[in-house]
Amino acid sequence: MHEAEFIATLRTLPLHPGARGLSDDAAVIAIGGETLVVTHDMVAEGVHYLPGADPFDVAWKLVAVNLSDLAAKGAEPIGILIGASLTDGSARFLEGLRAILTEYDVPLLGGDTIRAAGPAGFGCTAIGRATTATVPARSGAQPGDTLYLAGEIGAARRGWLALTKGEQASEDDIAAYLRPRPLLAQGRTLAPRAHAMMDVSDGLLLDASRMAAASGVTIDIDAFADDQAMRWGDDYALLLAASPLDSALPPRAIGRVLPRQAHDVLVDGRPVAGPLGYQH
Amino acid sequence: MHEAEFIATLRTLPLHPGARGLSDDAAVIAIGGETLVVTHDMVAEGVHYLPGADPFDVAWKLVAVNLSDLAAKGAEPIGILIGASLTDGSARFLEGLRAILTEYDVPLLGGDTIRAAGPAGFGCTAIGRATTATVPARSGAQPGDTLYLAGEIGAARRGWLALTKGEQASEDDIAAYLRPRPLLAQGRTLAPRAHAMMDVSDGLLLDASRMAAASGVTIDIDAFADDQAMRWGDDYALLLAASPLDSALPPRAIGRVLPRQAHDVLVDGRPVAGPLGYQH
Repeated sequence: MHEAEFIATLRTLPLHPGARGLSDDAAVIAIGGETLVVTHDMVAEGVHYLPGADPFDVAWKLVAVNLSDLAAKGAEPIGILIGASLTDGSARFLEGLRAILTEYDVPLLGGDTIRAAGPAGFGCTAIGRATTATVPARSGAQPGDTLYLAGEIGAARRGWLALTKGEQASEDDIAAYLRPRPLLAQGRTLAPRAHAMMDVSDGLLLDASRMAAASGVTIDIDAFADDQAMRWGDDYALLLAASPLDSALPPRAIGRVLPRQAHDVLVDGRPVAGPLGYQH
Repeated sequence: MHEAEFIATLRTLPLHPGARGLSDDAAVIAIGGETLVVTHDMVAEGVHYLPGADPFDVAWKLVAVNLSDLAAKGAEPIGILIGASLTDGSARFLEGLRAILTEYDVPLLGGDTIRAAGPAGFGCTAIGRATTATVPARSGAQPGDTLYLAGEIGAARRGWLALTKGEQASEDDIAAYLRPRPLLAQGRTLAPRAHAMMDVSDGLLLDASRMAAASGVTIDIDAFADDQAMRWGDDYALLLAASPLDSALPPRAIGRVLPRQAHDVLVDGRPVAGPLGYQH
């Protein structure tokens, strides 16, 4: 079974209303007077990272991608739970886990381990507390909104090319690929102003097309000098649609939200040729 | 690295106060005037189930063991998140998932899938709402308490022996092994009265010894007719220590809590020979 079919079937199961139809970065649960934001992502050897990868980086990235989902909802982390294969690299994995938990001041809530017979696999559940009454979804972009990008894109691609093809890249580029930095503070700052927000994990064009489809709009993006950077994931920048009247927004305006047209996403007003990003 | 060393290192990471030192069935988080109970468990092909197992049963058991952890804390499920390998059996896996979610009226909050290169692995995070002001821990057993067992033990072992050794067993025994039933309603009923509570996943004697160690007491259990049933897990009964004055308790009294002695656990007042249960 392919992922798309699996997810389509998952959507036919009994869903929590806060699951947002399994079409958002995270689930949203009202409890007491607060709102929880919850997400779960897995990584697997040979799929998300190469067998020779430093387990330190595997742990970092596993936690970072989950915290990035919280960032995209403007949530403040409460803690994480980890599921981990036991491997020869477990000591390094735990060092990486310690590093990112310390860096972002996020505590561990629990964990489970298995001695898997084959390639290693890891899971992480991140639990956060919403900081806004309305938690920004992917689906709130409105015609007339400006599209903003917080954080940079392109560095992770350069880092990946350096690691796998021997191309030139800076240490920052390599770090951007191996140890992405979830934009938690920026997410909290932007959430009150965002009509829609998500993280850019699979490529700017692809993720923008998802926001557009979820919102029933078309998103027109200004061409980047580096076309490939728009089609590459792993940067974990934040993409948001917000009112253009809000001059206090620090991130870069990169496009605009239009009434629904034939295409989800345009670049400089024209349909896009070629792949939009990383399709799982 | 072995599991014990991994967990010992996890305990040196920054822990949430509600993680209970990673020594309980679940984490407990106070939020918005309510208390959340959160747990994460994984299962892997070749470790927790045989490669030929029906994926329906794998999904059922994965969710059941997590719901059992909520039951042991008297929590009411809010929802679950699933991480799943994509396999040839994914359609059956999703049928099993649908069955248990429907049976226990638990909604899906989210999920992630991976196409793993080797044996399949699955993770589940269950999130529940505590129904008592104090969520029973493993550590609250007090000398003078009576030890109670809610649910039966032994059936899962008979089911396993039937499936793997061709021994005689009833359909109920086989179902007890393949599709355990988390005692959610019983857990909620018992939680207000329990000084300590946990589920029996690795064997009555082993799990009782953990409760005793966590509580700083010795637990004396009355011998069962079936000695092996006391040393076998997978039954997901609930074990609790409560005041013996409470005659309203429906479960079976199976022992008593004593002041701390040389051994964690005794049977009919004597130390136990042989393995206590299933050591991961």
